[in-house]
Amino acid sequence: MGMTMTQKILAAHAGLGSVSAGQLIMADLDMVLGNDITTPVAVNEFERAGFDGVFDREKISLVMDHFTPNKDIKAAEQCMQCRTFARRFDVKHFYDVGRMGIEHALLPEQGIVKAGDCIIGADSHTCTYGALGAFSTGVGSTDMAAGMATGQAWFKVPEAIKFNLKGSLAENVTGKDVILHIIGMIGVDGALYRSMEFMGEGLASLSMDDRLCIANMAIEAGAKNGIFMVDEITEKYMKDRVKGEWKVYAPDDDAEYAEEYDIDLSILRPTVSFPHLPENTRTIDEVGDIGINQVVIGSCTNGRLEDMALAAEILKGRKVHDDVRAIIIPATQQIYKECIKNGYLDIFIDAGCVVSTPTCGPCLGGHMGILAEGERCVATTNRNFVGRMGHVKSEVYLASPAVAAASAVTGKISGPDEL
Amino acid sequence: MGMTMTQKILAAHAGLGSVSAGQLIMADLDMVLGNDITTPVAVNEFERAGFDGVFDREKISLVMDHFTPNKDIKAAEQCMQCRTFARRFDVKHFYDVGRMGIEHALLPEQGIVKAGDCIIGADSHTCTYGALGAFSTGVGSTDMAAGMATGQAWFKVPEAIKFNLKGSLAENVTGKDVILHIIGMIGVDGALYRSMEFMGEGLASLSMDDRLCIANMAIEAGAKNGIFMVDEITEKYMKDRVKGEWKVYAPDDDAEYAEEYDIDLSILRPTVSFPHLPENTRTIDEVGDIGINQVVIGSCTNGRLEDMALAAEILKGRKVHDDVRAIIIPATQQIYKECIKNGYLDIFIDAGCVVSTPTCGPCLGGHMGILAEGERCVATTNRNFVGRMGHVKSEVYLASPAVAAASAVTGKISGPDEL
Repeated sequence: MGMTMTQKILAAHAGLGSVSAGQLIMADLDMVLGNDITTPVAVNEFERAGFDGVFDREKISLVMDHFTPNKDIKAAEQCMQCRTFARRFDVKHFYDVGRMGIEHALLPEQGIVKAGDCIIGADSHTCTYGALGAFSTGVGSTDMAAGMATGQAWFKVPEAIKFNLKGSLAENVTGKDVILHIIGMIGVDGALYRSMEFMGEGLASLSMDDRLCIANMAIEAGAKNGIFMVDEITEKYMKDRVKGEWKVYAPDDDAEYAEEYDIDLSILRPTVSFPHLPENTRTIDEVGDIGINQVVIGSCTNGRLEDMALAAEILKGRKVHDDVRAIIIPATQQIYKECIKNGYLDIFIDAGCVVSTPTCGPCLGGHMGILAEGERCVATTNRNFVGRMGHVKSEVYLASPAVAAASAVTGKISGPDEL
Repeated sequence: MGMTMTQKILAAHAGLGSVSAGQLIMADLDMVLGNDITTPVAVNEFERAGFDGVFDREKISLVMDHFTPNKDIKAAEQCMQCRTFARRFDVKHFYDVGRMGIEHALLPEQGIVKAGDCIIGADSHTCTYGALGAFSTGVGSTDMAAGMATGQAWFKVPEAIKFNLKGSLAENVTGKDVILHIIGMIGVDGALYRSMEFMGEGLASLSMDDRLCIANMAIEAGAKNGIFMVDEITEKYMKDRVKGEWKVYAPDDDAEYAEEYDIDLSILRPTVSFPHLPENTRTIDEVGDIGINQVVIGSCTNGRLEDMALAAEILKGRKVHDDVRAIIIPATQQIYKECIKNGYLDIFIDAGCVVSTPTCGPCLGGHMGILAEGERCVATTNRNFVGRMGHVKSEVYLASPAVAAASAVTGKISGPDEL
């Protein structure tokens, strides 16, 4: 029996010739990730377990991104605990306030995750790095603690769903629309504990930023991970960033898939997930007249340079609607600098937007744009659960940067064609 | 008996030929100001009093700057209440998230406060506008409510302290050092319910940004207000911004002052206020070896363009110390844009700073850089009371942007000469 991409990576990291779905394995880790809210829990577990060293100071990333710049005393204490741990073990990839970005935008950008890697992170959107052809998945803080100490983690080898992409995206249709379409199609548990494996000729039309966005939201379909075939676009991206070698795992021709879907990218439309689940999708023409109070363009899902470029293109020379606060959060300091260089920040400010320092901010209800009772937000983030961005009676509509930017201008959920 | 600048403005606004210290008067108001944390209280009072209209929709400013972008649900609700009130009465100067700045930087910049005005604001640093030759003072939210409805407020005419400035400031010595020096000299109650009146040949060496900073902190000496003689620098500043006329009130030659001080600007040194009172000043050479964890450059005191320029000059080509988070907060969107244009933001980010959207942020312990137990911060803000920026066991050292920027680089409280 052949193996999928995910199965091949796991087999290689478990030192096994082959693995099959359902098998329990112990795999070596190439990177263990935590952030400012999960790392403190992991550090407590690490200490409780009596560990006194990390497996490899170069294979741990701690990113202070969630409640930073410190939103309150507790956030300050959490960052302090992370900082103390990082200093104690000389953790190489410790990204403190001001030298960072949102973890899942930062690690690929910095070239410290790559094709063929086996990665765990104490954050559910760790699945993002599948865009590079890595196996990458979210874990709890206890697994993170053990991973930091031992460099290994247990996995149950997942079954896979194959997504065979064809065609290419229309203008103003993005990776976000692809993944929202898929989640709408298969549901928030449609890929439960499975890997979502993306391949096919349609890949050629998807930029790395599109792929990172798609892989990022694999967890929103319940997937263990999302993973893309490595092609020239991936290779180019990594050549510009990664120091050292990477390894490409293509699926076997006789790899087994639990399900297979053909996705014709060319027929996708801008797509919006209605409250309170990502699977509640409607295409932009089905949305109706829904007034909004806030727009958020950013997050580990859609805070990358192409997202900023798309928002800037739409907001250029336009004004944010009086009823709307538009909050734009470039996901890393590097992206922020590119936004300055390309004139995007000027466009955003002239339009009446807030431009925030990189932070997860309002996405998970932390700070930097929390909603009051009854308020509605169009967000490029990844979850629209009840109360996710503030009051339990607020509403989050998930969409692409194009839809979010257009909606900021009109004051209601709108596609860019409506401007 | 002659009158001081403050007394002349109050007499004119009370419709009286003259007033004297201690007299109770009712004065007409040119501007009533509130922010996102004081306005909701004022609106509640306004409604409780049964008011059903505002005295002048063009003479009320509501600025959403303290806990914005909304740091939590309560902040979101407070902004919503302000927004609803502003819409109800068509308040002209409603500055919502993204279209704003910190109130005391914004109002002068926007040219909506000016020489000769009588201004109240439900914020203690409303005294800032004295830099323009206005009478301007902080009031409680109840006075703000009555002011919005009636356009008038009661005052007890203050006695005055005259500050006769001479000489000019040395390089890297700023308005902040002037006011810290004065507060160190007279104490935090040294000007209790008096007006601090600044005049003399030394004015010529003080930019408007210096003067706004000095007037801003008059309240930290307990003053009712601070006020500057209007000169060519003031006139030029207002010509560039103010629509309409202003009125200049010079003091009478025989005006009475409770106290008079000569301040030789040329001998002032960079000055730091130690915890936990602004009067605990030391010149930079007296500071000693004090390691720090954070630097904040911003606030209504020191978030203006010259402050940014000074910080950028010092941070250019340098790196923030590993142990320090450096948080830079341009005080308005216009200043933010100038920082982009002048390359300051690039310098800040290259140095490893956070650049925040305009907000009061950490100054009053709101968000955007709160301190943990035991942490120390050098801040260009205006108060270093116990727990002001976070944990009650954290410490805030007040200083100029030059000292703050230099300290960010060295990791301890330092003057720019130490780099």
